[in-house]
Amino acid sequence: MTEISQAAISWIAVDWGTSQVRAWALSDSGEVLQRASSARGMSTLTPDQFEGALLELIGGWLDDRRVIDVIACGMVGARQGWREAPYAEVPCAPQAVERMVRPEVADGRLRVSIIPGLCQRAPADVLRGEETQIAGLLAEHPDYSGVICLPGTHSKWVEIREGQVIAFQTFMTGELFALLSQQSVLRHGMQGDARLLDQQAFDTGLQAGAGKAQRLVGALFGLRAEGLLEGLAPVAARSRLSGLLIGQELAALDERWRGQRVCVIGDGESAERYRHALDILGVAALPVSAERVTLAGLTAAREHIQRGA
Amino acid sequence: MTEISQAAISWIAVDWGTSQVRAWALSDSGEVLQRASSARGMSTLTPDQFEGALLELIGGWLDDRRVIDVIACGMVGARQGWREAPYAEVPCAPQAVERMVRPEVADGRLRVSIIPGLCQRAPADVLRGEETQIAGLLAEHPDYSGVICLPGTHSKWVEIREGQVIAFQTFMTGELFALLSQQSVLRHGMQGDARLLDQQAFDTGLQAGAGKAQRLVGALFGLRAEGLLEGLAPVAARSRLSGLLIGQELAALDERWRGQRVCVIGDGESAERYRHALDILGVAALPVSAERVTLAGLTAAREHIQRGA
Repeated sequence: MTEISQAAISWIAVDWGTSQVRAWALSDSGEVLQRASSARGMSTLTPDQFEGALLELIGGWLDDRRVIDVIACGMVGARQGWREAPYAEVPCAPQAVERMVRPEVADGRLRVSIIPGLCQRAPADVLRGEETQIAGLLAEHPDYSGVICLPGTHSKWVEIREGQVIAFQTFMTGELFALLSQQSVLRHGMQGDARLLDQQAFDTGLQAGAGKAQRLVGALFGLRAEGLLEGLAPVAARSRLSGLLIGQELAALDERWRGQRVCVIGDGESAERYRHALDILGVAALPVSAERVTLAGLTAAREHIQRGA
Repeated sequence: MTEISQAAISWIAVDWGTSQVRAWALSDSGEVLQRASSARGMSTLTPDQFEGALLELIGGWLDDRRVIDVIACGMVGARQGWREAPYAEVPCAPQAVERMVRPEVADGRLRVSIIPGLCQRAPADVLRGEETQIAGLLAEHPDYSGVICLPGTHSKWVEIREGQVIAFQTFMTGELFALLSQQSVLRHGMQGDARLLDQQAFDTGLQAGAGKAQRLVGALFGLRAEGLLEGLAPVAARSRLSGLLIGQELAALDERWRGQRVCVIGDGESAERYRHALDILGVAALPVSAERVTLAGLTAAREHIQRGA
């Protein structure tokens, strides 16, 4: 990287999750000049290791002659992260920018700000990182009112009204799918390439899972038994399990998304699966790029800092 | 062991499960003369290792001057076990004694018979080992009509009428509890002695889990969030999870056990927990010793062999 492009870097955006960290070098006009990522997520680090992990990732972007702002969201602000950024409590605006925290750093070229997550008292729930994606979506659509779905290991469903997060709910659907398909007795009937999807089996599972009377605990072992008795193929079994779990999630939320505008934020296969599932259940959900709203949200936080500076 | 007590051993009963094997030396009158067990369950053995594992366990009980009957039930008869004992299909009597299989053995002192499990086509389901406990219960109570609950890693609920298994259903409740409490994100709030139970938290979880509108996927993450926000104690969180899962299971089965006689077969903490849960939901379930009905079932199978000999 040349010194000229270093000089063009105005600030650095970071999304620091449990298992991954991603960083972007941005120009003052918001152009992405560089991207970097690593597997040094929050769960792999002790508090004193975060600065080193950050420098490893973005050291080449720094300039000895000035201090650069690094704006970070995600599990980096958890109690067991770099420095705790205590939750803001809903109902509230998605990003509590006035309560960002500054971890101490040894390297004088860095000024790091961490965005707080959100909490809800009853029913108890928490999120970290998604608040920034929500803020990014609202920065682009200030009048958005409706529901936002953020698929992931722990998917989040968020209700937005008048620029505020009114309520949200977390589903461990993705983690349950991983545990059941890879570690439970069901794994014996689900071997092979996990990226393959049998769309028809997914849809069958989805309809069953979304059924009124369906209870997950009673539906799981049948996937194993059908493998033994009827030779149910591994890709069909895994796809049906995925549909079953997402169907349960959508049915649990029925009153929330029915009749509302729904956005699904995400760039991968998982977001596409949720959109398809909602479509089958009669809801046309709007796809939103996760990277775009993450950057928009981090940009909004940075603008707050600049106004204060 | 003296030669006199060897001579008193008439036959050997074996319950060979996935992770454990238990054996009993019995007199002709049914008295238990010896007990043995090991961790060499089906999942730890290839087909050619079963005979060695059996001899390791009961070799000391054998007598060079005669052939002794070994009657076995459980996963030893699975496709990946010692020798496959193909399922009998419900509705049928619990033990398909006329279809026991005889694995080949090198040791001339042994004659091994394996009892088939049961299968159900729609909804697809299978069991192995429980058929023998059911047969044992029916040997003691030939007129039993009602529901039998067999708690375990995979709990089984079985409907009995006129000496026949009419239908059954498997729940992965125990395995789900283990995965969620030990391997999911919930484990962070569930550390400590897993044997402790907070009865009140269990009951709260049970009532919530058995609630009409409750969906499991939407209820799990709250346990983690309450730990973070309200300091929910690990033993309370774990107990509530257990109640939640068992509540879901009982609610899924509601039409089956409501208004029926219910037996719970089991010797441990788990059976006690199910009985307590049923009690809270208004059903007085009869406790039945698992060891006693396992032996009664294996005895019934042995009597069939003797009648044929």
